[in-house]
Parts: sequence; structure tokens; C-alpha cells
Amino acid sequence: MPGISKKGRQMPASPIRKLVPYAEAAKKRGTHVIHLNIGQPDIKTPKVALDAVRNHNIEVLAYSMTEGSEMYRTKIAAYYAKNDIHVSSEDIIVTTGGSEALSFVMGTIMDADDEIIIPEPFYANYNGFATALGVKVVPIVSRIEDNFALPPISHFEKLIGPKTKAILICNPGNPTGYLYRKEEIQQLAQLVKKHNLFLVADEVYREFAYEGRVHYSILQEKGLEEHAIIVDSVSKRYSMCGARIGCLVSKNKTVIQTALKFAQARLSPPTFAQIASEAALETPQSYFDDVIKEYAERRNILIAELQKLEGVRVAVPQGAFYCVVKLPVSNSDDFAQWLLEKFEMDGATVMVAPAAGFYATKGLGTNQIRIAYVLEKELLVKAVQILGEALKKYNT
Amino acid sequence: MPGISKKGRQMPASPIRKLVPYAEAAKKRGTHVIHLNIGQPDIKTPKVALDAVRNHNIEVLAYSMTEGSEMYRTKIAAYYAKNDIHVSSEDIIVTTGGSEALSFVMGTIMDADDEIIIPEPFYANYNGFATALGVKVVPIVSRIEDNFALPPISHFEKLIGPKTKAILICNPGNPTGYLYRKEEIQQLAQLVKKHNLFLVADEVYREFAYEGRVHYSILQEKGLEEHAIIVDSVSKRYSMCGARIGCLVSKNKTVIQTALKFAQARLSPPTFAQIASEAALETPQSYFDDVIKEYAERRNILIAELQKLEGVRVAVPQGAFYCVVKLPVSNSDDFAQWLLEKFEMDGATVMVAPAAGFYATKGLGTNQIRIAYVLEKELLVKAVQILGEALKKYNT
Repeated sequence: MPGISKKGRQMPASPIRKLVPYAEAAKKRGTHVIHLNIGQPDIKTPKVALDAVRNHNIEVLAYSMTEGSEMYRTKIAAYYAKNDIHVSSEDIIVTTGGSEALSFVMGTIMDADDEIIIPEPFYANYNGFATALGVKVVPIVSRIEDNFALPPISHFEKLIGPKTKAILICNPGNPTGYLYRKEEIQQLAQLVKKHNLFLVADEVYREFAYEGRVHYSILQEKGLEEHAIIVDSVSKRYSMCGARIGCLVSKNKTVIQTALKFAQARLSPPTFAQIASEAALETPQSYFDDVIKEYAERRNILIAELQKLEGVRVAVPQGAFYCVVKLPVSNSDDFAQWLLEKFEMDGATVMVAPAAGFYATKGLGTNQIRIAYVLEKELLVKAVQILGEALKKYNT
Repeated sequence: MPGISKKGRQMPASPIRKLVPYAEAAKKRGTHVIHLNIGQPDIKTPKVALDAVRNHNIEVLAYSMTEGSEMYRTKIAAYYAKNDIHVSSEDIIVTTGGSEALSFVMGTIMDADDEIIIPEPFYANYNGFATALGVKVVPIVSRIEDNFALPPISHFEKLIGPKTKAILICNPGNPTGYLYRKEEIQQLAQLVKKHNLFLVADEVYREFAYEGRVHYSILQEKGLEEHAIIVDSVSKRYSMCGARIGCLVSKNKTVIQTALKFAQARLSPPTFAQIASEAALETPQSYFDDVIKEYAERRNILIAELQKLEGVRVAVPQGAFYCVVKLPVSNSDDFAQWLLEKFEMDGATVMVAPAAGFYATKGLGTNQIRIAYVLEKELLVKAVQILGEALKKYNT
């Protein structure tokens, strides 16, 4: 039997999905599983987007333009302008989700064995894309005690070497919920200009900022035009994860021209999803106001409930809809599995994402979990109650 | 300004799309451009597929399963059974087009610098995926004089070395239109078993076989289960290129488990497109009968017309909807550009794909073009007339 590749063996299993078989078994036993483990919002997709697909008049479902239609990209540029990010349609390539955008970016700026520095904990699939392309993730530790703020620039400088091509941030952060302050972005801007690196920002949670905070994009930073590359997606913004539409944005012409060649090889992004995504740009502001208000309330109640638990520490999130929680357990992988296999309260249990999979440094995050607050408030309260009871039982 | 990657510089521009700016300019001048250059069929997508999307009742457009829904995969397995290919839903991963399926396959079985042998001319984007992943395409020449039949096995054996991981065929072939005979598949099966390689077959044109010929799949070949990997797509079968749904199929469990990890990193294939693709499986046989009849007629008339032209040689296609044509010109790149820039007949010209981009060996195919016969018969006749007049003028 012919063998598979070394990189195939190294590909990490998703920390978000690897407990799925245990959850399935729990459900088969009749236990209700409350999913805190995955960032699939329960928020309704805007009607305008769903209706656009319902009303399509396609007769031949043909390839679209490789980079997305001129019309859609022009409207995306207008969306950015409203967010004080000034780009034109030529600075944008429409992709099959933010995932594909990041793959294209990595291929465009990195060869095998090149290095990209990423503050950890970070979105676990960054590891998957890097492994698939044979490039190296160099983690830099951010601490739960600081709510996962940007590590000191001096720490970055120690990690920059001849193979370093870029720094990648997720802002606001998945899994941290940390929203980088303008000053932090400016420090990074100085750094990448000094060392002639790219600064890549995954800004898919741009709108999800709380306590009146406002997101500051790397493309708002003057002088960073040749260095800045944004990875974006409609998935969370319009609760349409299943569309699989995102984009990459850069003022650097060589980056766009090169990424376009990667895009040409896969022909085009999905057509129906582009119809939905273009229509989604017409979503009224009231939709976002309601959604952000809902998430803010969920966040507040989740944090308040978690802080009542003994021995539990929460990194208070200012953005996105995740938080990282330190538990009084030695191994959150074991605990998460135990929750699904051995525990229930009133016929229910919770599924959480063990945080170790969000760290590249072995041994970090082993007593942390990620919680996605994408469920209704009552369910979140109940989930934390279950977590509290479970911790008591687990630790005796 | 930070530099882009070496692989980014090496990524080939699409030979199918690179003449687009000249075509745009011709259209702006008022010249009608007949597109023989791209495999975008004019055939209508089955109504059942388009209606399924029109009638969707989605409220939250959520992620689907990474590998595609159990229901859809079960139905795909039933489709294969009808084609005498016996697989189960667990042998299938639904992908974002055949493109993604091939990327996953390459990542699953090859590391950087590993080699894959591909008969040339081949679908140009194979080069793109290989370059993106840093793997090496080793071409083996098939000849227009043989209608691009399988090269002798002894030629393959000369190319197999320690880095060789797989042989990739496209059957029926794009751009060649060649349909491998059962005996040729069996020769390849012997070869990959002897050398412990994978045999990957892009079978997206399975249904498009002419003159009563029947496609023989690598998964119909007994004893090849651990070696065979099929790349497939709904794009051409149902004229729904814009869906971006395909799949990879293998009885090799390690291949499927590994490819699934690559798939998890990108979360899921597009949801609306899966709805359309699942419904497309209900397309009545009469649709295919009509479509194949139409393509067969187009093929016959195109070949007959081309064979009237002096100095032109056609590799008669038995499958798919392309053919490679040798022209009495020294450089078909220049000729294709000249057709768009300098020539018109009755206000029209033709756009063809220069064939050199379908070869990996430099210098091959420079006097060949690929024609896609995805247009109505009258247009094909007119296109060949234009080509004939153009050749006369070009060569004087």
C-alpha cells in the first residue's frame, strides 16, 4: 500500500471538532449537549441575502470571475469605505471563505520553511493551512493574565530571523476575544516596516466590538499600504458561515497580482454564495445593532456567571464572540471528554473546545478552554451552571 | 517593500485566461469574439438543481459537515453504483470543486519535491496546484499522431524514481479528448501496483463519451482499491461550473482520513451549492441523452470542418468536449493573440487556447491549440470558417 505524505501525518486534527464522536455518543444516550465549542452563530442570516438566492434567475450556473465580479468587489470597497478603510475594487480578491484567502496569502508571501509569527493562542486552523503549505508558524505567547493583549514588541524582535516573512494577527481575536488597541496596531506597523515584513490581519470579526470600543484596521494605518494584507469573510458578519465567501484585501499590487494566479488555478468562488453575499451588503444597520446588542448581553451574562465559579479565570473579551477560560483542572482535554462521557446534570452536559489546540507551544493552554457565546442567554446560564457542577464533581 | 514568494513568482498564469485582455479590447472595438477557449458549456443546468436552491428554506446559513452531509454522500455513492463503481459514503469527501479535491489529494500523498507523473498535454491548472504545494510535475509525452493515447508503459518506468508518488490521468482527457481504453487502465494498474504508487484519475468528464464508447473508471479495476483515488466534480456533468462542488473518492481509508484533516482546516464546502448538487442527482436520464447527443453532433461537425482546412491536424476526441488541433503556424500563442488583435471576418473573430500551456515540457505544443466545443453547431461552423480564413491571411 502506497504511503501518505509526511505533512498528511502532521496535519493537526481540529481541536474544535475532535470531540465530536463523544458528543454523538452522549446524544445517543439521550443527553442534551450544549455546544459551547464551535463558532456557529444561532443568529438568523439577513433575509435580503437569503431572498436574493431564492429569487435567482440563473439558467446556466456558470463560472464567475476568478476574483469575483466587478460589481460585487465595488460594493465591498464601499462597505470598507463606511468602515474608514479606503480601498478600490482592484485591491480585492473574492475567495471561498476567509480560509481560502489565508491560504492564498500564505502561498503568495511564503515558500516552504519560511516563518510567520502569530500571537498564541490563535485560531487553530492557521496551523492546518501552514502545515498544508509547508510553512512554519512561530508562536509568540500572549497571556491570559493580560487578557491576551499584544506581547511586548521586544519579544517579537527576538523571534524575527532571515526566514520571517510576516506577522499574522486575528483582530478581534478568535479564541481570545481581544481587540487590539490603535496603539498596538501602530507598534506592529513600526515593527513590520523596520524589518520589511508583511502584516496580515484576520479581521472577520470587525463588527463585534463591545463597551463602545471601535475596531482599528491595519489598512487604516497610514504608510502601511505595501505591508498590510486583510483576510475577511462574510461568515460571522452576516451569520452565513455556510456561504463560504471571503476576500483578501491589499494595496500592494504585487500581492494582488500573485494571489490572483493562485485564485485562477481554482477557477472561481461559488456563484450562489456570491449572490447571497452581494445582497447581504444591503443588510440594514438595525440588523447589526440588534446582533451586537445581543452578543454584548450574552458576553456580559456569560462573564458574570463564569466569574462566580471558584478557581475559574476568564480573559474578558472586548470583541468577537469567544472567550478563553482557565479552569481548576490539570488537563482540559481530559475534562472536556469527561464532560461528554461521564457527566450530566438534569439530562444535559456541555461541549467545550480544549484550548491546547489553539497554542503552538506544547504544554501551554492545557488548563484552558475556549467558549463560543453563540447561544441564547438562558442556555449560556445553564451551561455555566453545568460547568460549575461538573468542576465540583471532577475535582473531588 | 516586502517580497513575494518564489512559488508566487513561479505560479503559471492560466493559458486559458491570459488572452482575456486582448479579447476585451476586441469586444470594445465592436468585434464579436467567438469563445473556443474555455470549457464553460452553454448547456442549461438541470431545472431540478436550480429549483432546489430557489425553494430553500434556510434561516441560518450554517456550516455544513466538513466531508459533506451523510445524505448527499450516500446519494453520490448510489450515482457511482449506477456507473458500476462500488463505493460507500465513507469513501467520499465532498469538496469545493474538483480543484480542491485535487489539492487535497496532492497534499495527502505528496510532500515538497515529491513527483507526480502526468501524461502531457494536461489540464493546465494541475501545474498551478503543484506549484502552490511545491510538488513536482514530471510530464510524459503523449502524441497528437496517436490521438494522445497512453504512452508506452516502458516510458513511464524510465521516469519512476524514489520521489515518485503517483501517476495522474484525466479520463476522458482535457485538453486531449482522449478516452483511455480498459486495457490502458489495466496497464497503469499493473504499473502502480508494481511500484507501489497511487493512481489518481480526474474523471469529471465521465459521461462525455462518443461513438458508443463507455468510460472505464480506475475504481472498476479489481485489486486497485488501495492505490486508486478519483477526483470528480458536478461542474461539467450538470453544466453547473459555478456551483464549485466536487469530491474525492478512495477505498484507501488512510487517504480519506488524511484528506479529511485538510478538509477540516477549511471547515466545509458551500451550502447552497451542495443543495443544488444533491438535487442534480435527480436529473432524468433524458437530460443526459440530449446533452451527449448534442455534444456528439458538435464534435462531429467541428472535426469535419477542421479536417477541411489545409495543413490542420485534429486529434479526434472520443470523450469530454475539447480537442487539440495542430495548426500550420510556428507559434500558436502569437497566432491566438493576432486573431484577437488584428483579424476579423464579417465583424467576428475567434478566441482559442494556445496549447503550449498544457505541456510541461518547454517547446512542445507550440503549434497546437485547444478548442472547447461548448457552443452551438452554427457558431462552431462559423468559428472554423474564421479560423480557416485567418490561417490563409496569417500565412501570407
